[in-house]
Amino acid sequence: MKAAPSPDEIRRRNLAVLLRHVHVSGPLSRAELAERMGLNRSTILALTTDLAAAGLVREELPGQTGKAGRPSLVVRPESDRVYVLALDVGADRLAVARVGLGGAIIDRCEMPRDTGAFDPEEVIAELARMTESMMDAAHKGSVCVGVGLAFCGMVRERDGVVRYGPNIGWVDVPVGALLSERLGVPVAVGNNANLGAIAERERGVGAGVRDLIYLHGEVGIGGGVIMGGELLGGEGGYGGEVGHMIVNPGGRACRCGSRGCLEAEAGELALIAAAGRSDLTGRAAVAAIVDAAARGDADARDALHQVGDWLGYGVANLVNVFNPTMVVFGGVLREIYLAAAAQVRSRLAVDGLLAVRERVRLRTSALADDAPLVGAAELAFAELLTDPLQTLARAQNS
Amino acid sequence: MKAAPSPDEIRRRNLAVLLRHVHVSGPLSRAELAERMGLNRSTILALTTDLAAAGLVREELPGQTGKAGRPSLVVRPESDRVYVLALDVGADRLAVARVGLGGAIIDRCEMPRDTGAFDPEEVIAELARMTESMMDAAHKGSVCVGVGLAFCGMVRERDGVVRYGPNIGWVDVPVGALLSERLGVPVAVGNNANLGAIAERERGVGAGVRDLIYLHGEVGIGGGVIMGGELLGGEGGYGGEVGHMIVNPGGRACRCGSRGCLEAEAGELALIAAAGRSDLTGRAAVAAIVDAAARGDADARDALHQVGDWLGYGVANLVNVFNPTMVVFGGVLREIYLAAAAQVRSRLAVDGLLAVRERVRLRTSALADDAPLVGAAELAFAELLTDPLQTLARAQNS
Repeated sequence: MKAAPSPDEIRRRNLAVLLRHVHVSGPLSRAELAERMGLNRSTILALTTDLAAAGLVREELPGQTGKAGRPSLVVRPESDRVYVLALDVGADRLAVARVGLGGAIIDRCEMPRDTGAFDPEEVIAELARMTESMMDAAHKGSVCVGVGLAFCGMVRERDGVVRYGPNIGWVDVPVGALLSERLGVPVAVGNNANLGAIAERERGVGAGVRDLIYLHGEVGIGGGVIMGGELLGGEGGYGGEVGHMIVNPGGRACRCGSRGCLEAEAGELALIAAAGRSDLTGRAAVAAIVDAAARGDADARDALHQVGDWLGYGVANLVNVFNPTMVVFGGVLREIYLAAAAQVRSRLAVDGLLAVRERVRLRTSALADDAPLVGAAELAFAELLTDPLQTLARAQNS
Repeated sequence: MKAAPSPDEIRRRNLAVLLRHVHVSGPLSRAELAERMGLNRSTILALTTDLAAAGLVREELPGQTGKAGRPSLVVRPESDRVYVLALDVGADRLAVARVGLGGAIIDRCEMPRDTGAFDPEEVIAELARMTESMMDAAHKGSVCVGVGLAFCGMVRERDGVVRYGPNIGWVDVPVGALLSERLGVPVAVGNNANLGAIAERERGVGAGVRDLIYLHGEVGIGGGVIMGGELLGGEGGYGGEVGHMIVNPGGRACRCGSRGCLEAEAGELALIAAAGRSDLTGRAAVAAIVDAAARGDADARDALHQVGDWLGYGVANLVNVFNPTMVVFGGVLREIYLAAAAQVRSRLAVDGLLAVRERVRLRTSALADDAPLVGAAELAFAELLTDPLQTLARAQNS
C-alpha cells in the first residue's frame, strides 16, 4: 500500500473538489457540499473559508426561494473576478471568449473567415490581438487563471502541436508554444470535438451521461468519444477521429487523401455538392439548403436524404462499435441532423444491432457552435480545479 | 473525503493485490513483491503467511539461478490445488478447460460441432457433462474457485443472458443462470472477443499494452477493445461489436440482417465464398484456401486479396477511430491476416491517418484459438482475486 496522503495533500484535494462542485453546479449550500463530498460541515466551513479568503468563492444569501424561515447561505464561485480565456480555431472562424469561474461566458468576440488554408502566423497574430483586447477590457482586480484553445484537427495534447489540420492546411504546427510565447502565459490545446464532447457532458445535453459520442460538423466532421466517463484518447491522444471512418469505399475524395470518409459523404461540402449549391459556402449554405428543403425544393430534399443516409451509416457503425448512451450532433451537423433525422434513424434501425440501438438516444447539441469554446474554457480551468490556491497565486504573480 | 478504509479492508485489498501479482507474473520473491506493491517486507511476510495458511500460495526455493550465495525464497501460486473451470461456446466448437491459479491450462477437452443453430438445452447438457467429468478427474483436495464462460455473441454480463448470438441462433437465452442451476455453482459469462482481448493483454502478445483491439474470427468476427487499460463496455456492456461495422454498404448479406458488415466481407464465410470452396467449412476451409494460395492457386490468392482488402478497411477505420497501440488478429483471422497482411497493410497505408497509423502495431494472437478460453478463466478468477480468503472459504464449503 502506498503511503497515505499527507494532510496538505488531502486539503489541496478537498479544496479542488469543493471548487469543482460549485464551478459545475453553481451555488450550493454548505449542507449540500457536505453531503456531496462525504465530509462533515465543520470541514466544509474550513475549506470554504480558505477559498473565500483567496477570492475564489463567496458566501451569500440565495435568491428568494419562497420558503419560510432563515435561508442558509450558499457558496458561489467568484465568476466576475476569476476567469479564463477560451479560444477556438474553427475551419471557418476564430473565436475568443472570456469565461468566468462557474462557466458563464462573460464576453466574446468572433471573426468569420473564408475556409481553406490559413497561415499559422496570421492566426497566431489575430488570436493574440483578440485575446489581448479582451484582457484589457476585463476589470482591474480580476485574474486570468488559464488559456485554452480548441483546434479543428488532430492535436498532440501534451505539447500543443497540431499534427494535422486538413481543413486549415496545417501539418505539425506548434500552435500551443507559439501562442504561449506571444501571450506570455501557458496555452493548453485540445481537439475541438473532444472539447465539445466534454462541454456537452459538463454543461450541455449530455449532463451525467457516462458513454457519449459528440459529432462536430464544420467543414469536416470531428468526433469526441467519452466512455465510462473518460475521454477516449488512445495511444497518442488522437482517438475519436470518427470523421475519417470510411463509410463508402471508393466514394467522394476526402481532404485526408482517402475516399468515402464520413466527413466526405455526410459533411457540409457533401451536402453543398449534392444540392448543387456551390454558389454558397459554409453555414450559410447549410442553412439555405435546409430552408429550401423545408419549402419543398426537391433537389435540397434529395441532397439531405442522401447525406442523412451516409450520416446514418456512420451513426450505426458508432453505435455498434461503442454502445453509447447518447450521440450528440453539434456544429452544422445540428442543422443537418434536424433536417435528416428520419433518414438517420431509419438507417440506424436497419443497421444497428438491436441490443445497442434500442437504448441509444440521438440528440442535438445544447451549446451549438459554442461547444468547442466552452470545452476550451474547461481545459483552461483544469489546473485551477486541481490545485486552486497555488494556481491562483501563480496567476496573480504573473 | 470518504472515511478511510478499515484495517480489515486494507488487509483484504493487499491480499488480493499480492495474489494477483503471482497469478499474473508467476513466482516472485518477497523483495519483488515489496517493491511492486510499495509495502515493506514485514507486511509482505504477514500477507504471504496468511495466503500460504489458506493454501493459495507456497514459498519455495526458485530454480537454479547460477548465482552464488543463498537464494531467496519465492512466493508461488498453488496452481495444482486451486483452479477454475473455463468454458467456451464458439460457433464451431465447445471447449472446457481446468486452469490453475497462475493461469496454466491443466486439462482440456474440446468438441467440434457443425456450424449453425444449436439448441440451448443441448449445449447446456453437453457443457455440464464435460465440466463434471473434468471436475471428477481433478485430484482430491483441489478446489474449484469459479466458473467462467466465453460466448460467441452479445452477452449482458450482469446476469449472463445471451442477448444475441447469430452464429448459433440464440436470442435472449439466460445461459449463465441455466448452467449455474445445472452445475450448482455461479457461472460468470462474457463475450468471447472481450475475454480474448483480456487474455491477450494479460498473457499474450499485448502484455502491458493499454490501448489494444482484439479481433476474433470464427464464423463471424468479434471484437474486444481495451482503452486506457479498461475494457470498453458502453452503456450496456456491448461495446466492441466491430464485426458489425459496415465497411461495404449494400454488400454481402450478414446474419445480423444488415449488409456489408466487416464479418460478412472479411470473415470465414466471405473467404470460402470468394474462393469457391463451399465443399469445405470452418477452420479446415480457411486452412485449405491459405494453403492453396501459398501453392500459387489463383482463385485462392484472389479470394485472400479481396477479403484482406475489406479487413484492411475495417482495420483502418478502427485505427482512425480508436488510435490503438496494437491490433491483434485471433481465431481464424490469425491465418487470414498472415496470408493477406500485405493487403491489410496497404489499405491501412492509404486510409489510415498518418498520426495514428505511424505508431500502430498489427500482431497475431499469441493464444490462438484459446484466447477466449484463457479470458474465461480470468473471468472465473476475478472473485478470488478481489477477496481471496472469503472466496476460497466459500468454495471449500460449497
